[in-house]
Amino acid sequence: MPLDQKIADRLKRTGDGLVPAVVQQYDTGEVLMLAWMDDEALHRTLSTGRATYWSRSRGEYWVKGDTSGHVQWVKHAALDCDGDTILLRVDQVGAACHTGDRTCFDADPLEVTVS
Amino acid sequence: MPLDQKIADRLKRTGDGLVPAVVQQYDTGEVLMLAWMDDEALHRTLSTGRATYWSRSRGEYWVKGDTSGHVQWVKHAALDCDGDTILLRVDQVGAACHTGDRTCFDADPLEVTVS
Repeated sequence: MPLDQKIADRLKRTGDGLVPAVVQQYDTGEVLMLAWMDDEALHRTLSTGRATYWSRSRGEYWVKGDTSGHVQWVKHAALDCDGDTILLRVDQVGAACHTGDRTCFDADPLEVTVS
Repeated sequence: MPLDQKIADRLKRTGDGLVPAVVQQYDTGEVLMLAWMDDEALHRTLSTGRATYWSRSRGEYWVKGDTSGHVQWVKHAALDCDGDTILLRVDQVGAACHTGDRTCFDADPLEVTVS
């Protein structure tokens, strides 16, 4: 069974058929990472409750945590006003980042230097 | 003066030279929206403290709030582990969404139906 047609009709995809998914820890509000979904990845995510992405580098579906154990249990999902971004609120087991950091945004702050 | 070369060297851009920016309210943790930046938009954001994006639909720079008054004052910026996503923590004046909603993810929840 594919993605619900009513959802598929609202999605606006990039040229390569993908939509960015922002992933947030549901209780603390931490932004954990950004990943990419096609229709099938979104369908699998909504129907299994396990965050599932399309890996642009490996060219395959990727169930977060299958290798690392760092599963994302999906608590809430939403589409944005333009249908071109997904927000997942998840319960992240362990580190979200493959570097071992809790989030993918921990290591590289950019200085805001207001002139 | 363009974007700091050390930052530019770390950015991984899409085929059209852009990087997605996730925008979060700095104190409540709400994910407000996702927008797109090229090097110049990131430079302007970091050097002015006003969130500035590249509008893919209009093909021009877009200083958030210039038309609506709904300014985003940038409190913190970070690059993710792969250099392909930016996280901005901002103080959002008024509604982040052009629909008048506080965030762009308020209106369209997707049902998670774990089978």
